[in-house]
Amino acid sequence: MTEVTYEFYYWPSIQGRGEFVRLALEDAGAPYKDVARLPEQEGGGSKAVVRMLSEAGSGLPPFAPPILKCGALVMAQTANILAFVAPRLGLVPDDEASRVAANQLQLTLADLADEAHDVHHPISVSLYYEDQKTEALRRAGHFVKERIPKYLGYFERVLESRHGPHLLGVHSYVDLSLFQVLSGLHYAFPKSMAALESRLPMLGAARVSVAARPRIRAYLASNRRLAFNQHGLFRHYPELDAS
Amino acid sequence: MTEVTYEFYYWPSIQGRGEFVRLALEDAGAPYKDVARLPEQEGGGSKAVVRMLSEAGSGLPPFAPPILKCGALVMAQTANILAFVAPRLGLVPDDEASRVAANQLQLTLADLADEAHDVHHPISVSLYYEDQKTEALRRAGHFVKERIPKYLGYFERVLESRHGPHLLGVHSYVDLSLFQVLSGLHYAFPKSMAALESRLPMLGAARVSVAARPRIRAYLASNRRLAFNQHGLFRHYPELDAS
Repeated sequence: MTEVTYEFYYWPSIQGRGEFVRLALEDAGAPYKDVARLPEQEGGGSKAVVRMLSEAGSGLPPFAPPILKCGALVMAQTANILAFVAPRLGLVPDDEASRVAANQLQLTLADLADEAHDVHHPISVSLYYEDQKTEALRRAGHFVKERIPKYLGYFERVLESRHGPHLLGVHSYVDLSLFQVLSGLHYAFPKSMAALESRLPMLGAARVSVAARPRIRAYLASNRRLAFNQHGLFRHYPELDAS
Repeated sequence: MTEVTYEFYYWPSIQGRGEFVRLALEDAGAPYKDVARLPEQEGGGSKAVVRMLSEAGSGLPPFAPPILKCGALVMAQTANILAFVAPRLGLVPDDEASRVAANQLQLTLADLADEAHDVHHPISVSLYYEDQKTEALRRAGHFVKERIPKYLGYFERVLESRHGPHLLGVHSYVDLSLFQVLSGLHYAFPKSMAALESRLPMLGAARVSVAARPRIRAYLASNRRLAFNQHGLFRHYPELDAS
C-alpha cells in the first residue's frame, strides 16, 4: 500500500457515477478523503466539487465529476479514473490484455448506466422527472424489455465463459462496477429484475460474491455508503418498472 | 512504423463511433483493413461485424462495434481502442499525465456524441426516428440551447488554456476526435452551429487545423471516408435544428 492519500470529489448526496470509484477505493482499503462529504467548514460540501470544476489552474479542468486527485494529478471521467487507479490498488491484473478487457467492460457498464439514467431523463437533465414523465414511461418500456436483457445477457455470457463470478477470471474493479450496476437496477426496477433473475444465475452469484467481500460488506453497512435515492443515476419510480 | 496490420470492424455504411478510430489510423498512416467494407466474397460486409460479435472464442466477446484486432488482441469500445492504439501510432505523448488527460477528453467527447445521437433517438434505438419524432423535437431544443453550448464552451476553454489548436498542447488523437464531433454537429445542426461559431474561435481554428493535415485531407477526399447520412450517429433533420 502506498502512502498517497487520494482526494475524491463527487456530489455529496448521491451515489451516481462516483460510486464506481468509491467502491474501488473501499475494496482496496485505500486511504482517501471523500472531500465533498466533509463539513463545509472543513472545505466540504458541493462547493468543493464546484471549486474543482472551475479551477482552470495548471492542468486540464474536468467537465464534470467524479474527480480524483492523486498527488499533482487531477483526473475526471469514471472509467479513466478507474483505469488509472486500479493498477495501483491491485484491482486489475498486470498484463495489457487484461487491462484492455477491463476498460472495455467498464465502458460497456457505463453505457448501461447511462441508458438507465436517461430512462428518467429522456428529454433533458435540466428538467425535472415530472416534466418528462410521459416520455420516460415510453422509454422505460423499451429499456426494461429490450436493453436490460440485452446488456445483462451479454455479461452473463462473459461470466459463463469464465466459469465463475469474475468478469476477468480473477477479482478486479469491473466486478465491483458490475455489482454497482446490478444493485442500481434492482433498486430502480425491482419487479423487472426479479422476473429476469432465474435466467441470470451467474450475475446473481457475482453480485453475492462482491457483497461478501469483507471491506465491501463493512462499507455497505457504514454511513460512508449513501443510500440509493431519487436524485441519483438509478431511481425507483414504480410506474417505470413494468411488471 | 510497426509491421502489424490492424483489422478494423465497424458497420460499413456509416461513420458512427467507428469514425474516431478510422481517423486515428488514417492520420498515422497505419496499415489497416476496414474489414466490413470489403466485398462479402472477401469476408466483408455487415456479416464480418456480426461474426466478431458472436465469436465467443478465446477472448472477451465485444458487446458492440467498433472492434479492433491487433495480432491476437481483440478489443472494443472506441475510447478503449484509441487509448491502446494511440501510443503505438504516435498520437499521444508518452507521459502518464498526458494519457490520462487524453482519455478524459475522449470520454467527454464521447458523452457529447452520445447525447447528439439520443436527440434523434430519445426513446429507443429499436424505433425509427419517425416513431419518436415528437420526443426528438423536444429533446433537440434542450440539446441545441443548453448542451451544445455547455460542451463546446468547455472545449473552447481548454484550447484557450493551451493557446493553440491542440487539446493537449501538441497534436494527438483527441484533436482528431474533436474534429469529428465538430464536423458531425455542423452536419446535423448547421444553423445552430453557425449561430455559435463567432463565440468559439479556438474550436474553429482547431477544426481547420485537422482538416489541413495532409493524410486527413487525402482521407476526407477519398472514398474511404463515408459521407454523413441519416443512419449514423449525427443526422440532419432540419426540424431538429432550431434557428
